[in-house]
Amino acid sequence: MNITEVKIRVRYKETDQMGVVHHTNYYTWFEVARTEFMRNTGMNYRQMEENGVMLPLLETHCYYLQGARYDDLVTVRTWVSKYVGIRVTMDYEVIRDEDGALLARGSTVHAFTDINLRPLNIKKKYPEIHKLFASLVK
Amino acid sequence: MNITEVKIRVRYKETDQMGVVHHTNYYTWFEVARTEFMRNTGMNYRQMEENGVMLPLLETHCYYLQGARYDDLVTVRTWVSKYVGIRVTMDYEVIRDEDGALLARGSTVHAFTDINLRPLNIKKKYPEIHKLFASLVK
Amino acid sequence: MNITEVKIRVRYKETDQMGVVHHTNYYTWFEVARTEFMRNTGMNYRQMEENGVMLPLLETHCYYLQGARYDDLVTVRTWVSKYVGIRVTMDYEVIRDEDGALLARGSTVHAFTDINLRPLNIKKKYPEIHKLFASLVK
Amino acid sequence: MNITEVKIRVRYKETDQMGVVHHTNYYTWFEVARTEFMRNTGMNYRQMEENGVMLPLLETHCYYLQGARYDDLVTVRTWVSKYVGIRVTMDYEVIRDEDGALLARGSTVHAFTDINLRPLNIKKKYPEIHKLFASLVK
Repeated sequence: MNITEVKIRVRYKETDQMGVVHHTNYYTWFEVARTEFMRNTGMNYRQMEENGVMLPLLETHCYYLQGARYDDLVTVRTWVSKYVGIRVTMDYEVIRDEDGALLARGSTVHAFTDINLRPLNIKKKYPEIHKLFASLVK
Repeated sequence: MNITEVKIRVRYKETDQMGVVHHTNYYTWFEVARTEFMRNTGMNYRQMEENGVMLPLLETHCYYLQGARYDDLVTVRTWVSKYVGIRVTMDYEVIRDEDGALLARGSTVHAFTDINLRPLNIKKKYPEIHKLFASLVK
Repeated sequence: MNITEVKIRVRYKETDQMGVVHHTNYYTWFEVARTEFMRNTGMNYRQMEENGVMLPLLETHCYYLQGARYDDLVTVRTWVSKYVGIRVTMDYEVIRDEDGALLARGSTVHAFTDINLRPLNIKKKYPEIHKLFASLVK
Repeated sequence: MNITEVKIRVRYKETDQMGVVHHTNYYTWFEVARTEFMRNTGMNYRQMEENGVMLPLLETHCYYLQGARYDDLVTVRTWVSKYVGIRVTMDYEVIRDEDGALLARGSTVHAFTDINLRPLNIKKKYPEIHKLFASLVK
């Protein structure tokens, strides 16, 4: 349960004239995986936002090993690597299904905020979310 | 005043593996030109949205003649081609600066709505916006 | 076989500050559906491009009825609506799974070209592709 | 000469439903700034690619301080922070023009490769590019 895997088919639009996936799209895939991770843990991120809890980005990092290509099927794996009450770090791996090659690794650091993007004391305001994240750290 | 021209430098990200600009990006350029058109007429679209007037899309159309390439400088021209009170049509041309070639033509049809995307009687509620658009039709 | 349906989960990145999917992304979804349509008919578009047959866009059209939202599950349906040897037209519908509402309709017109984006006489050069497309028109 | 500044007007498409610029777009702006940096130093990146020298990404990093909003005018500053013959690191700052606030900082690490994305000994093959980059480190 602590690792979520999502399958993504590379879109034509995601390529650039180098013939591989433009580097920004890995971050979009991380986001797709994050949504499914949240769903798997029982938190629906869409509902969280509708309830006024946002997870804006503080940092993003990505290391590119090999380029994904149009129509490749890739698996994005994600998990919580760190949680310290006011911020949470998620790690990611992108694997090409055809040969199991690791294409990219990355991480994103998020703050918990309210709808006006002001920091939120998640432990106090949403103890059940706090407990869940604390239990998810891998 | 009735035609706005905007210069755009093609971004690497906007290319795809065909080596030309991905067709969706012309619509993004149309949107950039629309923002400047509005500014030129004295309506600031950001302020309009902040005041609760939205211009969501009803239709988009584009005809592609030649592909723009990375680092090309293009001019996007836009004007109001039709205005009937509840909806407005804008037309566009994308021209390559280097040789004046017409790369694409397009149009977008917009509704006036409130912030909840419900139709807005612009003539009644915002007569000054109504008058302006009526005067802008080319 | 003549209609392909693809499921797409709306990505956060695909939304804009209006709170709905930015209109350009429907065209990206059409492209995703096109790839699967081709695969279903036995033509792999990636292989087609590797063999030097490209399908660049001549026209794109979209009609927006209701906005898709983040995390919505939508079905994109696509089929060949016209084929005249040198160009092919595909039609699309985007349906929201939750309630079956039609969110958007569209069409794209493509030329057959070689790798240098020069027109290709598909009937002469690739009679099997010609026959297939001719048989697919709905 | 060692720092390039580029002005960017935030596009509507670059926002997401949080009402601010989606985090991936900062990387696209870094890329825009990179293109202008190269042009300012006398290397045209488009020509470099046409001559078979590519600069694919090895790493990307971004730190987000405040969110840019639709129609904001921002300045992206970029410079070479490290150069070790086979790879080059560029640093970036995104500043909001209205109040001079620093919105984001980032860096990208690039390899020199040939058109097939194989590592290139830039010092041997292109000594003039090597000298230029060595002289640009800030």
